[in-house]
Amino acid sequence: MKILITGGPTREPIDAVRYISNRSSGKMSVALAHAAAQVGHEVTLLLGPVEAGEVGLPDLTKAGVRLDRFESSSDLEGLLKTHWSNHNVLVMAAAVADYRSKRVTMGKLTKGPGSTLELSLGPTPDLVAAMAQVKRPDQRVVAFALEQAANLENRALKKLNEKAVDAIVANSLETMGDDSIEPLWLTASGVRELPGHMSKTAFARWLTDKLTSL
Amino acid sequence: MKILITGGPTREPIDAVRYISNRSSGKMSVALAHAAAQVGHEVTLLLGPVEAGEVGLPDLTKAGVRLDRFESSSDLEGLLKTHWSNHNVLVMAAAVADYRSKRVTMGKLTKGPGSTLELSLGPTPDLVAAMAQVKRPDQRVVAFALEQAANLENRALKKLNEKAVDAIVANSLETMGDDSIEPLWLTASGVRELPGHMSKTAFARWLTDKLTSL
Repeated sequence: MKILITGGPTREPIDAVRYISNRSSGKMSVALAHAAAQVGHEVTLLLGPVEAGEVGLPDLTKAGVRLDRFESSSDLEGLLKTHWSNHNVLVMAAAVADYRSKRVTMGKLTKGPGSTLELSLGPTPDLVAAMAQVKRPDQRVVAFALEQAANLENRALKKLNEKAVDAIVANSLETMGDDSIEPLWLTASGVRELPGHMSKTAFARWLTDKLTSL
Repeated sequence: MKILITGGPTREPIDAVRYISNRSSGKMSVALAHAAAQVGHEVTLLLGPVEAGEVGLPDLTKAGVRLDRFESSSDLEGLLKTHWSNHNVLVMAAAVADYRSKRVTMGKLTKGPGSTLELSLGPTPDLVAAMAQVKRPDQRVVAFALEQAANLENRALKKLNEKAVDAIVANSLETMGDDSIEPLWLTASGVRELPGHMSKTAFARWLTDKLTSL
């Protein structure tokens, strides 16, 4: 199969130097790209601004994974539009910002004495929903949901339905940046599995198997 | 001399996963720590969240530089309060955020359909001014100013006076993240020098000499 994986955070510019981002490390996506390449899938990884040393990027290209980098949700949107039609499965592990500044200042916003700043944020395009909407019958979309432990399952089910994806991996907030995960796997056909607490590497292998069964 | 150097961006939290940051790479501070340690100064580097691989941190600790990491401007404030009194010179190369969210949400801000978000930002503590205010007669403070090329000198002079520092290194915005620099050096005693376009490594050696003359 040809698997398209996204990972890491986005950076949404406020001005020429400032941006809004999040604590996603990209580790889950890199582990998944490794696992999928190891069992013979063709893998494209779209990766945001992460610490290259921490996630082991050189290994990844050695393993034959095609790597493309993005910075903002708008960059990622462009890459998805280019790559999605040539793949069978999309796994959206990227922590795409929900909000971005409505107005991006050229140059640098200057600070007056005791100044405050009201930043108007608007929604970013819902990329996973957009990709699910244009998918062909032979394509599958898997989303990730990072939510507070309370109501994790209800929120994930809501996301699964609203975004019309084939499956969702739900995690509690504490997982972000961590090396291990305790995921909940929900599919549109009603499957519900709790593989338990495990390393992201072990979960990557588990998830690769699931992708084939979707 | 005992030299305290700060470098890299700060991350100012919005909620448990989101933050505001900037494109500072920390390269200038690392180059300066290297240059100062090489000529025998005792160096402490307070470094923000930067790509460790890109800035060469292992070399730094081998060179005998004492390294402490920060994330938010509030973390950096704590570290400065601990270290400043034990040093002779402070070089504030860190790109400390000017603004931070007035309210930090526990957990994750949730997104409604078509939602927007008004983020109220307030000023961060002016750390370089605060350190200049408590300095002893044997201590010197050097600030950095990153400004748009137009009015660079006027803005830098204004900053030099308002923050009551001993000297300032002014750069145009384009320098951020780059490997070279075209700095303007201004001191409280009226010195004005333009050492020219050079690598950050070469400027680090130039600046180390200047610190001794302050």
